[in-house]
Amino acid sequence: MVGGGQLARMTYQAAIPLGVTLRVLSERADDGAALVSADVEIGSHTDLEALRRFAAGCDVVTFDHELAPPELLEKLAGEGHVLRPSPAAMRFAQDKLWQREQFGALGLPVPAHAVVATAEDVAAFATDHGGWPVVIKAARGGYDGRGVWVARSPEDAARVVAEGSAGGLRLFAEAMVELEREVAVLIARRPGGESVVYPVVETVQADGMCRELVSPAPIDPSVAAHARNIAERIADGIGVTGIMAVELFVAKGGDVLVNEIATRPHNSGHHTIEGCVTSQFENHVRAVLDWPLGSTAPAAPAVVTVNVVGGASGGDPRANLPRALAVPGVHVHLYGKGPRPGRKLGHVTALGEDVSEVRERADRAAAILVGEPA
Amino acid sequence: MVGGGQLARMTYQAAIPLGVTLRVLSERADDGAALVSADVEIGSHTDLEALRRFAAGCDVVTFDHELAPPELLEKLAGEGHVLRPSPAAMRFAQDKLWQREQFGALGLPVPAHAVVATAEDVAAFATDHGGWPVVIKAARGGYDGRGVWVARSPEDAARVVAEGSAGGLRLFAEAMVELEREVAVLIARRPGGESVVYPVVETVQADGMCRELVSPAPIDPSVAAHARNIAERIADGIGVTGIMAVELFVAKGGDVLVNEIATRPHNSGHHTIEGCVTSQFENHVRAVLDWPLGSTAPAAPAVVTVNVVGGASGGDPRANLPRALAVPGVHVHLYGKGPRPGRKLGHVTALGEDVSEVRERADRAAAILVGEPA
Repeated sequence: MVGGGQLARMTYQAAIPLGVTLRVLSERADDGAALVSADVEIGSHTDLEALRRFAAGCDVVTFDHELAPPELLEKLAGEGHVLRPSPAAMRFAQDKLWQREQFGALGLPVPAHAVVATAEDVAAFATDHGGWPVVIKAARGGYDGRGVWVARSPEDAARVVAEGSAGGLRLFAEAMVELEREVAVLIARRPGGESVVYPVVETVQADGMCRELVSPAPIDPSVAAHARNIAERIADGIGVTGIMAVELFVAKGGDVLVNEIATRPHNSGHHTIEGCVTSQFENHVRAVLDWPLGSTAPAAPAVVTVNVVGGASGGDPRANLPRALAVPGVHVHLYGKGPRPGRKLGHVTALGEDVSEVRERADRAAAILVGEPA
Repeated sequence: MVGGGQLARMTYQAAIPLGVTLRVLSERADDGAALVSADVEIGSHTDLEALRRFAAGCDVVTFDHELAPPELLEKLAGEGHVLRPSPAAMRFAQDKLWQREQFGALGLPVPAHAVVATAEDVAAFATDHGGWPVVIKAARGGYDGRGVWVARSPEDAARVVAEGSAGGLRLFAEAMVELEREVAVLIARRPGGESVVYPVVETVQADGMCRELVSPAPIDPSVAAHARNIAERIADGIGVTGIMAVELFVAKGGDVLVNEIATRPHNSGHHTIEGCVTSQFENHVRAVLDWPLGSTAPAAPAVVTVNVVGGASGGDPRANLPRALAVPGVHVHLYGKGPRPGRKLGHVTALGEDVSEVRERADRAAAILVGEPA
């Protein structure tokens, strides 16, 4: 697995019972996965020689992130290494504009959007699509709220475009969706096309970052079926292998629109570790090795995962862990990182019959971990 | 953790989300836990210098087996290393005769037993305790049926005593219990005495080795309560820290007798990984670090674990894994070992509503793994 973050760390954990050695290419020896893996290569995903050395020891190369340059991935694939997902499938996660354009062409529901190069382009888009605010996104490089701006006026738009152009970013404008809620669908797909879809999960966002997962999402069954169908169409459409996460907007009125996808295990699937029969991490390993996929059935009527995000007070979850473990029946996952405001340090999952009761426990443990009131 | 077998391997897996680095002292680099741990020291548990080097890097030293010589453990403890469980508690698991004598003195129900040095001693024991057969056990060194013999006649007894004496074993005779079934109780206990007890599990044995776990055990609730109470009395009586497994005989008529204990994670608790809210491995880590213990509540009405034991045909679970994963909803755990007849290579757990349906799936997957008919 290229990348040594928490996704690789949790994939490593899932690979142990399968008897699979998960080799990790990690930039730093103290990255989350590098701390736990018995087979670590230190090197950068932007260094072709490091990627080659790494891939030489792997049956299959897969990814903890989509940051490796496409041209290097093409090179590796051309040299005979088995990359799952393929560089062509990864491109959809690497380039949001490409994703929007292709999904539109596939007939999938996406927000109205247009490439913008100037503030005037944004203003024209606003005029054509219900006025301000307008969302401006960078085609590449964004995550956790980075690379996304909300322009509330022509002046906002001018500032974003100037900054983006200075940074060499390709930008596009997007109609702001009046949200009922955001949801995600995870799907695991084998090279031959066999796939399993997880129940739709609600992703509660704050400051552009997912803070909480609620499974099943409290949405109408027909909306859930539609969301799952969209995920299946995308998975087949781009020919993904492994886990793919589709983040979706549920608009007021019930319309479902594709926000973006990730072609790897994803933060919106952490509840699956205890909350489904087979975790996203195990199914990712099974899918990229072309093994039969595991059941995605829920393990309890209500599952809530709360992300543990570094707070202003700098509380360290590693120090607060024993107190958090006193909360009944919570599953704490720490990623081996030091605290920093806004940094994802871990997550807490709780299961039960009643979503309010379950959420209360997960919230409480997560708050204790960062030393802040729930 | 001293010892690099599958118990350390599964403890390593459980330690990852807690952010705990499980350092492993392993005899061989290809032992199950040595294959997956990022922090391995190769060395023997019978070598004081290796134990010292290992312990120097640990906050707490715990164990995957009870084979380290008591005098070395005493030495480490005397030098200030924190051993959990303590050498005094470990002695009960290391010496079956000591265990029998002390448990009898504590008023716990144990089979009738007596030290034997000659065939005549065994014959006298038979005369006093209902005749033949008589069980003969070695005080030390037995597991998975080793160190246990069934003498059906004075001639059998003479042979066992001669062999045992030649091998320098201390032997004792024990009345053969007419069994209804065998069960086990796992308990996790912190240094201060706080403990949590798991539901009683049935352990189905063949050839002296546990082949299958069924949780909850199909026994009368009063018998289960009695078994759990015995486990709590033993845990407090010997002052164990960490997981302790108590293997019990349920005699025809409902009497419960202590067979033996292990002061570490145990094969009779593998179903707890998916089958209980908190696994025995996670609770072992939490207990030895003196952290609050996790819920032992069952995750489903019926949980069955089937051990994957190497068969005569030499089928390799690593090769058969993909086919086994096609069985719906099974959790396969491989220990990273090559196949050998009678060797524990892994286990399979299934959860559900109905024990027959659950057992059928677990059995089927386990049989596929060793390439034999279920």
